[in-house]
Amino acid sequence: MQTRLARLYAKGDLRIETDPVAAPGPGEVLLKMAAAGICGSDLHYYQDGGFGPVRVREPMIPGHEAAGTVEQAGESVTLKAGTLVAVNPSQPCGACEYCSIGLPIHCLEMRFMGSAMRLPHEQGMFREWLVVPAKQCVEVGASITAAEAACSEPLSVCLHAASRAPGIAGKKVLVTGAGPIGSLMVAVVSHYEAAEIVVTDLADAALARAKAMGASRTINAVRDAESFAEFQSGKGYFDLVFECSAAAPAIHSAIAAARPRGTIVQVGVSGDVPVPLNAIVGKELHIHGTQRFHEEFAVAVDLISRRKIDVRPIISHRMPLGDAVSAFEIAGDRSLACKVQLTFQSP
Amino acid sequence: MQTRLARLYAKGDLRIETDPVAAPGPGEVLLKMAAAGICGSDLHYYQDGGFGPVRVREPMIPGHEAAGTVEQAGESVTLKAGTLVAVNPSQPCGACEYCSIGLPIHCLEMRFMGSAMRLPHEQGMFREWLVVPAKQCVEVGASITAAEAACSEPLSVCLHAASRAPGIAGKKVLVTGAGPIGSLMVAVVSHYEAAEIVVTDLADAALARAKAMGASRTINAVRDAESFAEFQSGKGYFDLVFECSAAAPAIHSAIAAARPRGTIVQVGVSGDVPVPLNAIVGKELHIHGTQRFHEEFAVAVDLISRRKIDVRPIISHRMPLGDAVSAFEIAGDRSLACKVQLTFQSP
Amino acid sequence: MQTRLARLYAKGDLRIETDPVAAPGPGEVLLKMAAAGICGSDLHYYQDGGFGPVRVREPMIPGHEAAGTVEQAGESVTLKAGTLVAVNPSQPCGACEYCSIGLPIHCLEMRFMGSAMRLPHEQGMFREWLVVPAKQCVEVGASITAAEAACSEPLSVCLHAASRAPGIAGKKVLVTGAGPIGSLMVAVVSHYEAAEIVVTDLADAALARAKAMGASRTINAVRDAESFAEFQSGKGYFDLVFECSAAAPAIHSAIAAARPRGTIVQVGVSGDVPVPLNAIVGKELHIHGTQRFHEEFAVAVDLISRRKIDVRPIISHRMPLGDAVSAFEIAGDRSLACKVQLTFQSP
Amino acid sequence: MQTRLARLYAKGDLRIETDPVAAPGPGEVLLKMAAAGICGSDLHYYQDGGFGPVRVREPMIPGHEAAGTVEQAGESVTLKAGTLVAVNPSQPCGACEYCSIGLPIHCLEMRFMGSAMRLPHEQGMFREWLVVPAKQCVEVGASITAAEAACSEPLSVCLHAASRAPGIAGKKVLVTGAGPIGSLMVAVVSHYEAAEIVVTDLADAALARAKAMGASRTINAVRDAESFAEFQSGKGYFDLVFECSAAAPAIHSAIAAARPRGTIVQVGVSGDVPVPLNAIVGKELHIHGTQRFHEEFAVAVDLISRRKIDVRPIISHRMPLGDAVSAFEIAGDRSLACKVQLTFQSP
Repeated sequence: MQTRLARLYAKGDLRIETDPVAAPGPGEVLLKMAAAGICGSDLHYYQDGGFGPVRVREPMIPGHEAAGTVEQAGESVTLKAGTLVAVNPSQPCGACEYCSIGLPIHCLEMRFMGSAMRLPHEQGMFREWLVVPAKQCVEVGASITAAEAACSEPLSVCLHAASRAPGIAGKKVLVTGAGPIGSLMVAVVSHYEAAEIVVTDLADAALARAKAMGASRTINAVRDAESFAEFQSGKGYFDLVFECSAAAPAIHSAIAAARPRGTIVQVGVSGDVPVPLNAIVGKELHIHGTQRFHEEFAVAVDLISRRKIDVRPIISHRMPLGDAVSAFEIAGDRSLACKVQLTFQSP
Repeated sequence: MQTRLARLYAKGDLRIETDPVAAPGPGEVLLKMAAAGICGSDLHYYQDGGFGPVRVREPMIPGHEAAGTVEQAGESVTLKAGTLVAVNPSQPCGACEYCSIGLPIHCLEMRFMGSAMRLPHEQGMFREWLVVPAKQCVEVGASITAAEAACSEPLSVCLHAASRAPGIAGKKVLVTGAGPIGSLMVAVVSHYEAAEIVVTDLADAALARAKAMGASRTINAVRDAESFAEFQSGKGYFDLVFECSAAAPAIHSAIAAARPRGTIVQVGVSGDVPVPLNAIVGKELHIHGTQRFHEEFAVAVDLISRRKIDVRPIISHRMPLGDAVSAFEIAGDRSLACKVQLTFQSP
Repeated sequence: MQTRLARLYAKGDLRIETDPVAAPGPGEVLLKMAAAGICGSDLHYYQDGGFGPVRVREPMIPGHEAAGTVEQAGESVTLKAGTLVAVNPSQPCGACEYCSIGLPIHCLEMRFMGSAMRLPHEQGMFREWLVVPAKQCVEVGASITAAEAACSEPLSVCLHAASRAPGIAGKKVLVTGAGPIGSLMVAVVSHYEAAEIVVTDLADAALARAKAMGASRTINAVRDAESFAEFQSGKGYFDLVFECSAAAPAIHSAIAAARPRGTIVQVGVSGDVPVPLNAIVGKELHIHGTQRFHEEFAVAVDLISRRKIDVRPIISHRMPLGDAVSAFEIAGDRSLACKVQLTFQSP
Repeated sequence: MQTRLARLYAKGDLRIETDPVAAPGPGEVLLKMAAAGICGSDLHYYQDGGFGPVRVREPMIPGHEAAGTVEQAGESVTLKAGTLVAVNPSQPCGACEYCSIGLPIHCLEMRFMGSAMRLPHEQGMFREWLVVPAKQCVEVGASITAAEAACSEPLSVCLHAASRAPGIAGKKVLVTGAGPIGSLMVAVVSHYEAAEIVVTDLADAALARAKAMGASRTINAVRDAESFAEFQSGKGYFDLVFECSAAAPAIHSAIAAARPRGTIVQVGVSGDVPVPLNAIVGKELHIHGTQRFHEEFAVAVDLISRRKIDVRPIISHRMPLGDAVSAFEIAGDRSLACKVQLTFQSP
């Protein structure tokens, strides 16, 4: 049996290739993939060959946000053929120093699918057929699409980010950056009943999506800078900020608009960014870094399955695997795209 | 009655002058000042005319770390003549939005003695005689000196910083920067039974003082950079960092040496400093800003009064008011000085 | 203008009477009441003349869970005639020791509508017409009924209880007691994405309602005691318990079924109840009392308005004001009733 | 080689016997015991044959608070002969469900020296010579006595209890019960700079010891009940309670004297005790169970070694092993004794 797949050889060099597929072993399933989203880190691999110290050093199949249907179950697997599942790409070792104290997110031997962090790289899910441990597969509700199911991973990231804040219900919340993560963050914060959700971005298309996901107000950070400045008067306005842009101007604005003892959850990643220490100290802000997720994956699948969070507004493009290069190009254009997904109909 | 005092007119222009002294009104006391420390912010006023947006815009008497003896008590004051007291320079309004929710540190109308933040500036304590509300005076134990009592204010800052951390006993702690605040921070963290206290600085004299205050190990951040690098292997070593330098290299080192989910309490202040977002996010660090103090002032006086924290090693110089200009020059030389105090013997 | 109302004179002595209605003053509205629920405390007043030290000492109109439509707005009120609103019965003073530190729930001068705690008693909302400050009225979404809107108050209680727990998403939760509060607690815990919600009660009808509100499993605590015992093996199973029964056997079962370092939020109220100190200590449990609500009222109205929480399954009976005595009798029969509401159509 | 020891056969049946002593194996040390305190649980074994479900079901050597000097070190042990050490009696398995998530205190296979919880019982330290793993031995400072070192274990219990509270410095604290644990609790709370420490007990001798350990005020709960009642006016006075008596009247008093949102750390253990649910709910109290310790043992040894906490006032009696029966009888008389220790001079 053969599978087509997308493999990245270097910056800008993504190729469609064909590999053999093994039969699922004990505890494994063979999935017929149905949808796989392109994430910011996939884009960094493609556009820049990596990010920070993480570089593509050998050919790698990207993709860690995917859903597929069970084609064949290996020994001692109870999932039935035909079941739609979302695949959890996170594989902590369960035994290292951090796993042993209940912090699998910080596993020293983490194997995260589609990641170039370790060598050999952990291969990802941009392929038609995938063999994967059944325990990484979470069954999805019958009434939703594979495209929605494939959003479980980024939604997990946002649920975990939300868990790092001290309480959302009734709070005034700012979300900076309305890409896929920022938009899902809005949905999570709305689900958890924030009193007010203001979103900033530079792209109007992105802001429109954030609005569809539940923002109470969207502000173009450049064109409407004056409107935003109101939130910075006195000692600030927001109880809680989810910083999803990793851009210096957004971080400065957010800090200026946060109330004394307010909380900033830093979701966006980049390298060095200048921050105003005097404001962090003077307002005694709390800044919490957040990355990935663990128990949140099952919660994300459940929220999507029951459409308690409707992720459809963020899915801007769905393109067949054969057009992966175009898909990556489109995904890189924020004025146009939000979440771009690959599809895997057999040719 | 007349008092000599030190008044700052502009950057570098500090003059010894004489002003009349009023009699203490109801609820006030007249203090004969005995010791007053020069703080980092006093130095900024003198060396740079201010810091960040806070500028000396009119003549101001600096000084907010002081102790004196009661000379005369106004109506309805129970403090007895001859009592040594430490003066709490913090005067929150008690009525604004933040005072009303139990956050006097963030008072919108804060009158902090010796501060140029508001206009008119709040006059400070570099003077021989001072009339001040009795409720700002905390009685000091009989067996300690005025010099020690005058350290109550900076110790309060460190106690408040400690309260922002999630627990110190048994933790591995890093203190970056061994000036007066860093050194007192070491004493506080030692009092609260940290398992290990590593201190970094560039000046060996400063590190020697930190050692005397309870550090288990001191490291010259430039000369012994390699030793420190050991703490950065794996995902880091320290549970808790008190960042007292506000210097970019120290902040980077500290972040690299903090464990996943570790805490960094930012005590030092400066303007924009670049920070590595990827490490903050990837290790899910907690960063808490901290400024000033409130209920901690009484605790500081008590700890000093019973010498449960012995502040004497940080007091490097004591000079008469008349030599205030020299005192400021010496205080600015970190290789030489730690805490420089003015004394007020009548001529 | 006249209003009919229900006034309680003593245990078991509830009378339908007629009072004059004043015109709404500045900042007030006149409401035509539409639905008002009978709460557990109302029942205690009627059945026992009070609870604990709180006794009905003068005639009192009960009722603190109500909704109505604006008939007439006083000066400087922006609510339009015809708007359906839920009435927040909580009136903290805003000035006492606890209000000043941001704890209005613990106001020393709290005036809670329909409560016999203070003298004179604070009159409640079992009446056809009500004049009330507009700031206590929260506008309700257009697509829901007054009956649902009148559930905002008990839902607020549950939202506040949820805020006392350290995080619900992904947790295994036990709810003991499936009356109106227990059932709404289930809805809240489900909304916040508990992984599993087990509910215990003695009445099958109550358990059926809890199921409709989102319980993953219901257990009759007497008939299926053996099933429940499984949760008590090892050191226990549940991360989180919402104790809504205030019954000693339920509290014992819950403590035995909680995991080490688990959390019990005590929602139900009664007098002295024996608890096993050895288990609380040996498992290092966290027990948090919870009462009333504050900012949660607006959140409750929003959740109900958008039917993100559908409260309809708990409304078991709706009866006209004239049948208030029967309504109270029915509300006291747990095998039959859950939430019983009075309605106020003019005769 | 032979050792004398005290072995409990049943309620009231404590015998002095002689056993052979093996040579220390790899990683072990042979200790010449110097002091061993009688704890409340030892007393329960002796007086009642156990407590709650924990019963003495086979002969057991009691004793889990002890210090001794190294006589001989086994292979690969670095402790030198003659070193005074405190022995940590806690031996979590390191592998069970709770150990793996960083909660060794709740180890499912805990082997705690001198405990009848498991079968076979874990033998304790009331013996002249003891072979024990070196990793359980913590070196003690040179200037203190073995009697003080043997208080490390109960002090650890109190340090752990303190860590369960949200912050002690500047708080108003109540300690109920002034036995050995209550008295050490006072010392810990004083070390952590509580603003005020009120202690209640029924025995004046116990209160005098609490005073010596740092109480700011002691109150005889029966004779001065009126004085204590002042703390219960309004909604209560104390921010924080350490309940060390496990007695129903003390718990009731403490709950009545705690402020809204105050914290009660339950240190004392007993079976069922009635508690007022209405006050727990109405004041939204936080109750935290606490048991044993883990990382706190090293902290306790350090505090004692430097006499930052001076434990000597609680050591009321020191008696030779041969008089163990009398020692237990005296330890049971609260009007007379506080901490009673056995000593082990060779005959």
